[in-house]
Amino acid sequence: MPYIAFESAQLLPEIKEQLIERLTEVSAEVTGIPKELFLVSIREQPDDNIAVGGKTITKLKQELTEKT
Amino acid sequence: MPYIAFESAQLLPEIKEQLIERLTEVSAEVTGIPKELFLVSIREQPDDNIAVGGKTITKLKQELTEKT
Amino acid sequence: MPYIAFESAQLLPEIKEQLIERLTEVSAEVTGIPKELFLVSIREQPDDNIAVGGKTITKLKQELTEKT
Amino acid sequence: MPYIAFESAQLLPEIKEQLIERLTEVSAEVTGIPKELFLVSIREQPDDNIAVGGKTITKLKQELTEKT
Amino acid sequence: MPYIAFESAQLLPEIKEQLIERLTEVSAEVTGIPKELFLVSIREQPDDNIAVGGKTITKLKQELTEKT
Amino acid sequence: MPYIAFESAQLLPEIKEQLIERLTEVSAEVTGIPKELFLVSIREQPDDNIAVGGKTITKLKQELTEKT
Repeated sequence: MPYIAFESAQLLPEIKEQLIERLTEVSAEVTGIPKELFLVSIREQPDDNIAVGGKTITKLKQELTEKT
Repeated sequence: MPYIAFESAQLLPEIKEQLIERLTEVSAEVTGIPKELFLVSIREQPDDNIAVGGKTITKLKQELTEKT
Repeated sequence: MPYIAFESAQLLPEIKEQLIERLTEVSAEVTGIPKELFLVSIREQPDDNIAVGGKTITKLKQELTEKT
Repeated sequence: MPYIAFESAQLLPEIKEQLIERLTEVSAEVTGIPKELFLVSIREQPDDNIAVGGKTITKLKQELTEKT
Repeated sequence: MPYIAFESAQLLPEIKEQLIERLTEVSAEVTGIPKELFLVSIREQPDDNIAVGGKTITKLKQELTEKT
Repeated sequence: MPYIAFESAQLLPEIKEQLIERLTEVSAEVTGIPKELFLVSIREQPDDNIAVGGKTITKLKQELTEKT
């Protein structure tokens, strides 16, 4: 019974649905474990709550906008 | 200091309270570790964010309603 | 499909088995969700890898032995 | 920077490698987020530490062998 | 690529920002891994969803107010 | 009762000890929550089980050695 947690910033509903389907499909294909046994959890976080290199997604997006 | 994370769809307040109490009680009883040392976190997710076999809880609930 | 993760120091096999059974039973009873839908993962960690108040379980156990 | 955690029983090295590649590829394709920004963690657990419906993978595998 | 998850009750924005910066800085300093490679996720939970010793943060806060 | 999970490749014992102390200290300082209430878990993973951009730490280390 594999468990897949996908943690990221907020996602659009259709993106979530596709992610769930494709992550389950690919995992079943690669492992040979039946699709029905996969549990997937999409953990969406606010942009202020996820950071890379000490900078939040909020800050990284601001920097990106200032550069373009 | 055991840590128990319970991830599921949305739960009613009284259900959460009972889960926290009973999960802590049972774990203390089985492990012999004092109750005060248990940390419990209930992670509630929207129905669109949890899926089994590639289908979200939203879809599974729809299918259930259509069958009954 | 609730997911229960139980993270702690190393546990004896029979303790793990009882934990899995009792955590599943209690959760099914409290939530009304069928037992078969529960996924449980017991995450055992070395004593050097879990800490409370900045002290590892290794250190806490040493302090306890010195006191008794 | 999405984070993907894949928790399951023990996997063969080549299966892990394929999972990492395919999970990253599919996620990048669906979300439009560059592949380089994905972090994947494969959490392998002993068969005694993962359970469905209160039964460990060890027990489920035993039951399966007895049936065949 | 280390991943740091900080799970707690709700936090003020400026506290989150400082936590992200300081946790990343300290981790980079101690491990020698470049700061840019650290991923941090702050998981805020409602007071009803986190419990110590079987009591939610909500209850613990109530008890604290009654004592003072 | 905040919970801090630090997931990475294998770490030396002294590095783990420093991480636990410094992560707890900094978190207590920034949040104002007493140090004794912090739970830290260091989750070490084999180099084949963590990947960035679809490449395992094993592969990334190989590429680094070939370049130097």
